[in-house]
Amino acid sequence: MSPSSSGRAPEPTPAIGLSARSARVAPFLAMSILGLAGEREAAGMNVLHLEVGQPSSPTPRPALEAARRELEHGLIGYTPSLGIPALRARISRHYRETYGVDVPAERVIVTTGSSAGFVLAFLALFDAGDRVAVSEPGYPAYRAILEALDIEPVPVRLTEADAYVLTPGNVTRAAAGRPLNGILAMSPANPTGTMMGRAPLAALCAYARDNGIPFISDEIYHGLTYAAPAVSALECRSDAVIINSFSKYFCMTGWRVGWMVVPAHMVDPVERLAQNLYLSPPQVSQKAALAAFDARDDMERIREGYARNRAMLLEELPKIGVTRMYPADGAFYIFADIGDFTGDSIAFCKALLNEAGVAAAPGVDFDPVHGNRFIRLSFARSLDECREAVRRIGQWLGKR
Amino acid sequence: MSPSSSGRAPEPTPAIGLSARSARVAPFLAMSILGLAGEREAAGMNVLHLEVGQPSSPTPRPALEAARRELEHGLIGYTPSLGIPALRARISRHYRETYGVDVPAERVIVTTGSSAGFVLAFLALFDAGDRVAVSEPGYPAYRAILEALDIEPVPVRLTEADAYVLTPGNVTRAAAGRPLNGILAMSPANPTGTMMGRAPLAALCAYARDNGIPFISDEIYHGLTYAAPAVSALECRSDAVIINSFSKYFCMTGWRVGWMVVPAHMVDPVERLAQNLYLSPPQVSQKAALAAFDARDDMERIREGYARNRAMLLEELPKIGVTRMYPADGAFYIFADIGDFTGDSIAFCKALLNEAGVAAAPGVDFDPVHGNRFIRLSFARSLDECREAVRRIGQWLGKR
Repeated sequence: MSPSSSGRAPEPTPAIGLSARSARVAPFLAMSILGLAGEREAAGMNVLHLEVGQPSSPTPRPALEAARRELEHGLIGYTPSLGIPALRARISRHYRETYGVDVPAERVIVTTGSSAGFVLAFLALFDAGDRVAVSEPGYPAYRAILEALDIEPVPVRLTEADAYVLTPGNVTRAAAGRPLNGILAMSPANPTGTMMGRAPLAALCAYARDNGIPFISDEIYHGLTYAAPAVSALECRSDAVIINSFSKYFCMTGWRVGWMVVPAHMVDPVERLAQNLYLSPPQVSQKAALAAFDARDDMERIREGYARNRAMLLEELPKIGVTRMYPADGAFYIFADIGDFTGDSIAFCKALLNEAGVAAAPGVDFDPVHGNRFIRLSFARSLDECREAVRRIGQWLGKR
Repeated sequence: MSPSSSGRAPEPTPAIGLSARSARVAPFLAMSILGLAGEREAAGMNVLHLEVGQPSSPTPRPALEAARRELEHGLIGYTPSLGIPALRARISRHYRETYGVDVPAERVIVTTGSSAGFVLAFLALFDAGDRVAVSEPGYPAYRAILEALDIEPVPVRLTEADAYVLTPGNVTRAAAGRPLNGILAMSPANPTGTMMGRAPLAALCAYARDNGIPFISDEIYHGLTYAAPAVSALECRSDAVIINSFSKYFCMTGWRVGWMVVPAHMVDPVERLAQNLYLSPPQVSQKAALAAFDARDDMERIREGYARNRAMLLEELPKIGVTRMYPADGAFYIFADIGDFTGDSIAFCKALLNEAGVAAAPGVDFDPVHGNRFIRLSFARSLDECREAVRRIGQWLGKR
């Protein structure tokens, strides 16, 4: 499915060769559904956007004001490749205040979204043919970026017995006797919302360290938790590689600004890569991000709204027949089993969009094995929108 | 030289392995000098910034106004991965108006700066071990990105006999009897300012086509020419891969927004890669870029200013002993031979910055063979700044 490329006229020029690595990269279907949903809206349909991992709340006010100040002078130029010093310092302070860990600003690297953080981390740490453990279900871009860079993702099947998180045991089994070159974990996780408590995270960090391999921790959903706060891998292992972003907690997806924390010896290689692959993150976005830290109270109110949405969905979805879902302890997703209704989550999502005006992400994005039995619903919306989505889904399922 | 990483305390944690590919990537010294210059300014020094390829003019007014409008609603989210449709359509129109070539909007892809365009093009077209011809001297990020992606850059030495551009002859010689998988050309070129006329460009396009390999044309300095206008590779070959950006002509470096034009069969692979590696270009930047097309008159006035700076430099530099330089027919650089003064362009640039307050880019960035005899001076500044730079350089050279 590639909606935006449908309907193109055939090109008369002969095809020049495409790479084998690009053929390995699967489309990110949630982004494709976003495109389709946009087309439906342009045609007049009311669409509820539960498909992408994107808050419906606007950018926090202090961030917008900071951006406005940049527009006044209008000199929007390259920043240092590792980010503006004030933002790196502010993120360093965030680690002290939030986790009680001391991270010198020199080890904080501002990136063009967490997307750039992954590319930079993978290129700095891994060579072609290296093998990196990733969870399945999991964020699809991990696999895609690794494959584009000729690195082999080693999928680790998450099971209820392991509380749906990576463990030394399931990682060892997935490695199947061949060496791993890294482990990539995420807590709270996308799409499942599962979280790793301190002990499991420490055990996995220790396992990586014992095996002499880097531990990459995607902490993009930190702050968005509904029971216990999330633990940073930096609390367990000072040389963990952290990927984070202003997109989720701070509602700043479209600004494309995130950060990494790396061990000191990684700063120089990441800087060289960033200088060449990115030049610098967007300037205005960095100034906005710096100011976003002043909006913690607003962000907490938004999180409380997500908590209400989550509680409502966990109560109401079973009433319309959606009874099995992963625990949504953090992040803002329900990864729901729709196996009673379909064995083709892409067709299900397309029909749900076209017939009921609800955009959801097909489970095959996140799980190539069982994903056809799942959809991912984002509840980073208003309570009314979430309620209306349940109503529309229920009515639509009833009519099928 | 890695100024931003100097002075870091040694880290107690043991080193985890870095990749071999990251070790191959050289620092972009112009960006490092930018960082050093920032430190000097923070310490109170007046610095003239001739080191990075960045206009000193602010973002055009219509672009700033468009950005301001986005900040009013504050909903800054992901856009389609290939860019907002209105911007893709506007760029398509630009090709019709500027070059008289018909490029459907579906083949226009908005990118996070030209940097993302290179990564996407290289990943879509080339596999590990492939060989791509690039000019030497040339833009250093080409080599760095190719090497990070395990693609082999094949440097083609530019000579006066070939008017300092790629030709079928010098490309064939550089290939040394082994197959090439692509050719990457740039006109106007960085750092030399050389341009390819219609006949040489058509000959090179035909050569690539005859060899069945893609032709990538970096046209980021189009519009910034001082004699004849630049020719687009699309005028010679409809399936050329074009990389461009709003950074140079439109003075929008810090917004990180550029574009590609690709043949139809490349749209889908580039979309899949973009969905996973970038998600989307920054939203506000795309709206600003769309409006920038309304500022052509302002941009032309800025170009006329560059033309005055260029004429002044070509007249005045010889008077201070800098007598040999590449023809600066386009772009906004003088790539000057300083071999009479030093055999170490990095040391030369550091001393020039520290002792005379002029930031220049060391030639080794652009030419690993003869670069120690060269510096690159950007004249995308005011005439007064350029004059003052010549005065300071002359005085400083006189004292050495």
